[in-house]
Amino acid sequence: MISRNRAKFIKSLQLKKFRKLERTFVVEGSKSALELFNANYRIIMLVATPQFIQKNAETFASGGFEIIEASEKELSALGSFQNNSDVLVVAETKPNVALPININEYTLVLDDIRDPGNLGTILRIADWYGFRQIIASETSAELYNPKTLQASMGSFTHVNVYYTDLQEFLAGFNMPVYGAFLQGSAVHDVEFASGGVIIIGNESRGISSELLQFIHHRISIPRYGQAESLNAAIATAVICDNLRSRRVK
Amino acid sequence: MISRNRAKFIKSLQLKKFRKLERTFVVEGSKSALELFNANYRIIMLVATPQFIQKNAETFASGGFEIIEASEKELSALGSFQNNSDVLVVAETKPNVALPININEYTLVLDDIRDPGNLGTILRIADWYGFRQIIASETSAELYNPKTLQASMGSFTHVNVYYTDLQEFLAGFNMPVYGAFLQGSAVHDVEFASGGVIIIGNESRGISSELLQFIHHRISIPRYGQAESLNAAIATAVICDNLRSRRVK
Repeated sequence: MISRNRAKFIKSLQLKKFRKLERTFVVEGSKSALELFNANYRIIMLVATPQFIQKNAETFASGGFEIIEASEKELSALGSFQNNSDVLVVAETKPNVALPININEYTLVLDDIRDPGNLGTILRIADWYGFRQIIASETSAELYNPKTLQASMGSFTHVNVYYTDLQEFLAGFNMPVYGAFLQGSAVHDVEFASGGVIIIGNESRGISSELLQFIHHRISIPRYGQAESLNAAIATAVICDNLRSRRVK
Repeated sequence: MISRNRAKFIKSLQLKKFRKLERTFVVEGSKSALELFNANYRIIMLVATPQFIQKNAETFASGGFEIIEASEKELSALGSFQNNSDVLVVAETKPNVALPININEYTLVLDDIRDPGNLGTILRIADWYGFRQIIASETSAELYNPKTLQASMGSFTHVNVYYTDLQEFLAGFNMPVYGAFLQGSAVHDVEFASGGVIIIGNESRGISSELLQFIHHRISIPRYGQAESLNAAIATAVICDNLRSRRVK
């Protein structure tokens, strides 16, 4: 049984305001929760069914956090998603820190990706295609939004997300910069350099005009039919697939 | 001002039960609404702001349907989405009919894609990559679900969706059958035949065991990082991109 105060605290973390204030976030569902325990996060509280706690006792053996038993009904009421009814973890957010970029490495740059579902899906794609880091504009969706975490399927623990002013970042960046456009060189024919960044623009407006001066290569995904555009996450996946398959050959 | 009866009728169409019963569906937002007028659908009713009606008067000149003026507030209250506040169209659903498949053509087969957002995104991808048709299991999400239509961004008017029993369909199909798996030949190296079908499986369970006997080629998307899987729509896009770029060369 979870106390009223703790329940209130957890529910408050559904709002960005309280996540920022408390530097704390909530992860729901066993897949994401277990990924969190394998990653380098400071866990504050585990709320789970007795069955879940028993089944994963070894994972929780290190201790240092509160373990609270709750029923599936209580868990559903605490979380943002109806389906996640076995576990919920409260953990500390990480400071907003960039990883140093290697000369042979590609990094994704997200310019104003507003939809948390898209950000989460892009995290999962970045993780699949072996990117260590995403650099996101400060206007992009929040990493710790429950919808972002949900769509990332645990990949938020594998890929670092750094929020910054993209103009400043790109002004100080001296590796090749690729941008995704509706008009540009066909991604199937692009000769990618050994490292650089790929910029993905906003869902409806694309890459913002202030960033155009920093882009060396405009790439686009050839269209064979009639749709006007592709979703931002879809475009990211297709470009990453072309990048990785090219360099492996 | 829209009458109470008409408002009630339109709102009832948010439920699949009434869409089936009335063979009628609702499209929201200017992009999808205008696509609908360019396509071969029987329009029953147009509800829009006076500004929208005036701006698109030529498109509506053919007549044969009711035009009702409404405020943005009324439109928001009628629809499923808060953002679509300029227009809403009521139209007849199309009968569930297959297009004949050409020998040089690829068709997407969806085995139990449950999420309407995924179905809509796959429609948009199919449209972008020039597929004329999707064959979907009867357990897949509904084409006329507002979330499907919304995610398809108008592409539901360009791609035919035919719902059928996939075992029966595949048993009578004598062209190459490709299936998307986590383990299989790397999609980057697959030599695609000139025509066939590509099966995409359910979001969590993949392709159902009853269909395995019909699959000639198992294809997979090489992974370069740690994510366990890719979202079904993402996988569809990457496979379609590989198929199309291969055959064009």
